[in-house]
Amino acid sequence: MKLNNETKSQHKEPRITLVGAGPGDADLITIKGMKALQTADVVLYDALVNDDLLDLAPATAQKVYVGKRSGEHSYSQDAVNQLMVDYALNYGHVVRLKGGDPFVFGRGYEEIEFAAAHQIPTQVVPGISSSIGVPGLQQIPVTHRGASESFWVITGTTADQQISKDLYDAARSNATVVVLMGLHKLVQITEIFKAEGKHELPAAIIQSGSTDKEKVVIGTVETLVELAAANQVKAPAMMIFGKVVSLHPAFNTVKNLYGILA
Amino acid sequence: MKLNNETKSQHKEPRITLVGAGPGDADLITIKGMKALQTADVVLYDALVNDDLLDLAPATAQKVYVGKRSGEHSYSQDAVNQLMVDYALNYGHVVRLKGGDPFVFGRGYEEIEFAAAHQIPTQVVPGISSSIGVPGLQQIPVTHRGASESFWVITGTTADQQISKDLYDAARSNATVVVLMGLHKLVQITEIFKAEGKHELPAAIIQSGSTDKEKVVIGTVETLVELAAANQVKAPAMMIFGKVVSLHPAFNTVKNLYGILA
Repeated sequence: MKLNNETKSQHKEPRITLVGAGPGDADLITIKGMKALQTADVVLYDALVNDDLLDLAPATAQKVYVGKRSGEHSYSQDAVNQLMVDYALNYGHVVRLKGGDPFVFGRGYEEIEFAAAHQIPTQVVPGISSSIGVPGLQQIPVTHRGASESFWVITGTTADQQISKDLYDAARSNATVVVLMGLHKLVQITEIFKAEGKHELPAAIIQSGSTDKEKVVIGTVETLVELAAANQVKAPAMMIFGKVVSLHPAFNTVKNLYGILA
Repeated sequence: MKLNNETKSQHKEPRITLVGAGPGDADLITIKGMKALQTADVVLYDALVNDDLLDLAPATAQKVYVGKRSGEHSYSQDAVNQLMVDYALNYGHVVRLKGGDPFVFGRGYEEIEFAAAHQIPTQVVPGISSSIGVPGLQQIPVTHRGASESFWVITGTTADQQISKDLYDAARSNATVVVLMGLHKLVQITEIFKAEGKHELPAAIIQSGSTDKEKVVIGTVETLVELAAANQVKAPAMMIFGKVVSLHPAFNTVKNLYGILA
């Protein structure tokens, strides 16, 4: 019997679950994500994932950090893909725990594609994307009647380290524009909105949304760079451009200071 | 002592928590949303909310349906706002449980604005928006390197029952375009993409995403209306337009049938 059990544990079916961990607060994972972690044999987790979530996995599960932080050793996407498959083949259920939602600039599809090429079944558990959830926690709605009928979510850092070309179109549009991973290009990004004459468009930066390091800066396209410097905003941070930002209580101060009619 | 307890229970501090219930699967609520429900005195819930979530609230909590389904009696937004405030003032903690995320076409901001006007403190717990989560569960990523650097989420039904004007700009853009609540305008919506010459753009409809009534239709702008009819797709349903739809396994059939090179 002992031998059988051992044999069984050595031949667990390999499978991979991509789980979105949400924006930072550990309680913003879904129940479905929690259940996936509870059955994990291995957890591969990213830099922006809350460490407390690892406690949801069994004590016996291996927890492997594969995140990328500037200045640290980091795994390439190819290395992460390979690790994920190797762990699944050797240990069974791999939970690939990713910040936010796996498919919002998370390269999640590359991971399930690689797994599929190795005949390993995959499942996806969505996560709260910071693009919606982080402004929402600050009571900035990405849509609101009379202010915005749509929202457009864009990366500030494309594969070739550029601002997405889509941002030029977005700056022209009436959508609420949410930019993820673009803080280091803040000056350029605000210039794109200025080129459309949108100097007075309400705008916000939220750093480390939903965590105890959260920092919120509320202003306009014109004032955002100065405010970010004055408040020493650092990555990870997201930007929100649009009338909806004027719904934040702090925008009243902006209006008074600059005489803007939002 | 008994009297004190009773007095206390009659004077609970009024407060309101807007909770996103996610797209349908009860396990797609967040742990934070679950905890809010566990302390609810009253739950006001919408049509698209999974009934199983009501079991997370105490048995003693009042559960009040305020949803809108076509052909049924329904509460106006004003009536919902008023009910929410009245319940909070009389019973304490009201959880306003809304499908998806409260701020993605959920009129959530109108509710917290009304509560604020009555000096009732509010908190927001984000939910999985179907715009990201429903395609994600089908392994259609809203962003993917080489296919999409952004996604644009738009309502198919504005306050005046029209397609949002933003959709005309979206059809011209390179973003993945996600349209919520627009199935009854499917013909018009596909015409907007055709007017941009995007007949062969991969496109999908997902009905009742994440539930056991889920139905997925994969095609192109050109074929979507016919496919929706053939598959008897019904609301609630969402549409996804963009190259990322070609990553769905069913798109191979589309390519073979129509000779499209995606």
